Amino acid sequence: MTNIAYLCIFFVMNKDELFMKKAIELAKKAKNKTCPNPLVGAVIVKEGKIIGQGYHKKAGLPHAEVEAINSVKDRNQLKDATIYVNLEPCNHYGRTPPCSLAIINSGIKRVVIGMRDINKKASGGIERLKGAGIDVKVGVLEDEAKKLNEVFIENTLNRKPFFIMKAAMLLNGCIAVKGGVSQWITSEKARRFSHRLRGTNSAVLVGINTIIMDDPLLTCRIKGYRQPKRVVLDMNLKIPISAKIFSEYPNNIYIITSKNSDDAKKRILRAMDVNIVECDTENGEFNPADLSEKLLENEICSCIVEGGSRTHGYFLKNKLYNKAYLLYAPKITGSYGAFNVAGFDAPKDLNEAIKLIDTKCKKIGDDILFEGYFK
Amino acid sequence: MTNIAYLCIFFVMNKDELFMKKAIELAKKAKNKTCPNPLVGAVIVKEGKIIGQGYHKKAGLPHAEVEAINSVKDRNQLKDATIYVNLEPCNHYGRTPPCSLAIINSGIKRVVIGMRDINKKASGGIERLKGAGIDVKVGVLEDEAKKLNEVFIENTLNRKPFFIMKAAMLLNGCIAVKGGVSQWITSEKARRFSHRLRGTNSAVLVGINTIIMDDPLLTCRIKGYRQPKRVVLDMNLKIPISAKIFSEYPNNIYIITSKNSDDAKKRILRAMDVNIVECDTENGEFNPADLSEKLLENEICSCIVEGGSRTHGYFLKNKLYNKAYLLYAPKITGSYGAFNVAGFDAPKDLNEAIKLIDTKCKKIGDDILFEGYFK
Repeated sequence: MTNIAYLCIFFVMNKDELFMKKAIELAKKAKNKTCPNPLVGAVIVKEGKIIGQGYHKKAGLPHAEVEAINSVKDRNQLKDATIYVNLEPCNHYGRTPPCSLAIINSGIKRVVIGMRDINKKASGGIERLKGAGIDVKVGVLEDEAKKLNEVFIENTLNRKPFFIMKAAMLLNGCIAVKGGVSQWITSEKARRFSHRLRGTNSAVLVGINTIIMDDPLLTCRIKGYRQPKRVVLDMNLKIPISAKIFSEYPNNIYIITSKNSDDAKKRILRAMDVNIVECDTENGEFNPADLSEKLLENEICSCIVEGGSRTHGYFLKNKLYNKAYLLYAPKITGSYGAFNVAGFDAPKDLNEAIKLIDTKCKKIGDDILFEGYFK
Repeated sequence: MTNIAYLCIFFVMNKDELFMKKAIELAKKAKNKTCPNPLVGAVIVKEGKIIGQGYHKKAGLPHAEVEAINSVKDRNQLKDATIYVNLEPCNHYGRTPPCSLAIINSGIKRVVIGMRDINKKASGGIERLKGAGIDVKVGVLEDEAKKLNEVFIENTLNRKPFFIMKAAMLLNGCIAVKGGVSQWITSEKARRFSHRLRGTNSAVLVGINTIIMDDPLLTCRIKGYRQPKRVVLDMNLKIPISAKIFSEYPNNIYIITSKNSDDAKKRILRAMDVNIVECDTENGEFNPADLSEKLLENEICSCIVEGGSRTHGYFLKNKLYNKAYLLYAPKITGSYGAFNVAGFDAPKDLNEAIKLIDTKCKKIGDDILFEGYFK
């Protein structure tokens, strides 16, 4: 942000909020890189001036608080300083020692926190800091702090990836016409948007029918972005060995299948370096809790679901979705024989509709992007 | 428009455009009131100053040019003046005498025209004016002039009403869940928008199934707006005599039915003051050209089609639509057993999709409004 922007914000924010905003901005630098850890930034302030800062770059690397403390050359400066951190400093020995201890040992006298840690294993930092006589303020820009870590919160509280519904549709909600043809509904610009989504989330997921019909690569084809993990829901292991998806990064592919599917094919795929993940099934579908757990185990924190119809239907009816990006092309066809984005049974009562909030819309080229959170 | 706004426009528009803009604004005052006539405004300018103005208020009342000429108290002022008019002055004796003649007789020496008249019966004004030695300039703000009279142009060139697709949908394009329940998908605010649409177009049209399922009034329930004509497509005259629609303004209702439907019921409905319009059918559907002609005969120049599924399907597949207003509520249900907005057969080829252009989107309350023109 420019200095002038800071100046403007200064008039509506108090100092604590201003420095917290800076901590959140630092945290964002590691977006999609810290999984399964949260995004955390820290700023150390003394006499109104920032004297140190840092953010958590990747699981296994130092936490933000330690990065910030280490960034201060003259350790005497830390005495009576304030540290701003968007998430409660951890209090456990995980891959790194507890940050609460590092703060206490540093001489810092005040800790301003965005939100409490919701991870029970790591929490308790606030109490330890207070116990050591440190002044602690909690809940500064709490909403922004929670939004920043929406993926981590979902992973921790609900033991599931942050699932994102993404679909390219006709105006009547159809994602493919007769025979399953879906390429291309939306424009080049909208497809670039979709690729950026792939490049900024842990994984992209499709159902086996999408593989069979469209034979997609599912890679991110924009330079400078990370390749997402690629997940295919394939209960009966119908995926053709010749599918294009196998042509690149096979060890990035996760085929979710039932325990009963063809063992010989599992061996072949494993020999191709593809990950085979067995998942519990019930009533002919994957058990949603087990699917979520298996994805988390594979460090899939956020997962874009790209369809098709029945796959979106599965995630919708099981209330697995957190967010939606729906792209509408300015086109329409008849719906009879087409594939609707929501391939599952309609209710009789409109009150049973799944609701979205915090919605937005904008144009991307000629297409319309609808964005919203599932309630 | 404020004077400052005019001042701003002045820098990007030349004088002819500026006065044409004024003529177009005047014309707009009679929006939805001139049917079957076009919207026309006229401004008379002398030595850079507006000395007279007028617009066509209603079919049968004087044309804009005559209104403008009559607004000038001192007729000597008209000598060597310029008249700006968004549509070519008429050249025929219709309900009023030709405007071209009125201009010639007034002493006006220059005529600036937005667009040529596309109505062959009335055109020829330009030639007559030129023949009388008047300086004529055509095509000033032509795009705006055409947009202003999009309804009149459609009526004249294609012999059909300007048909507007209007639907309130779930995010997946469904307009009703199982059993046909559709009340209410969108919010109060979106419904007010729909009522304004009804109040600013000649008619609202639904299929018989919508009457049977929803039993709507189809009136405009916002004060200060005109009541639209209400059209029901009811080939076999299934409409219940007890339908709510009959409770208000029965002479405003047009039941479109086949020649073969129940004559006794036709007599009963006519006795109730309801208009029964017989329309040709083919392959179990109304003949689109005859339907269009019958609606025009009843001075339905612009017609909002509010569904349901098969009715939108009929208008879509017959390429009757000119414009769409699609309201998406931030809700989704399964599509199996629900009613999609486009109730007709999907093609196998995506290139056969019906395309829309000049699209926009915005939020109306929690709902999203998509707006576009059919290509």
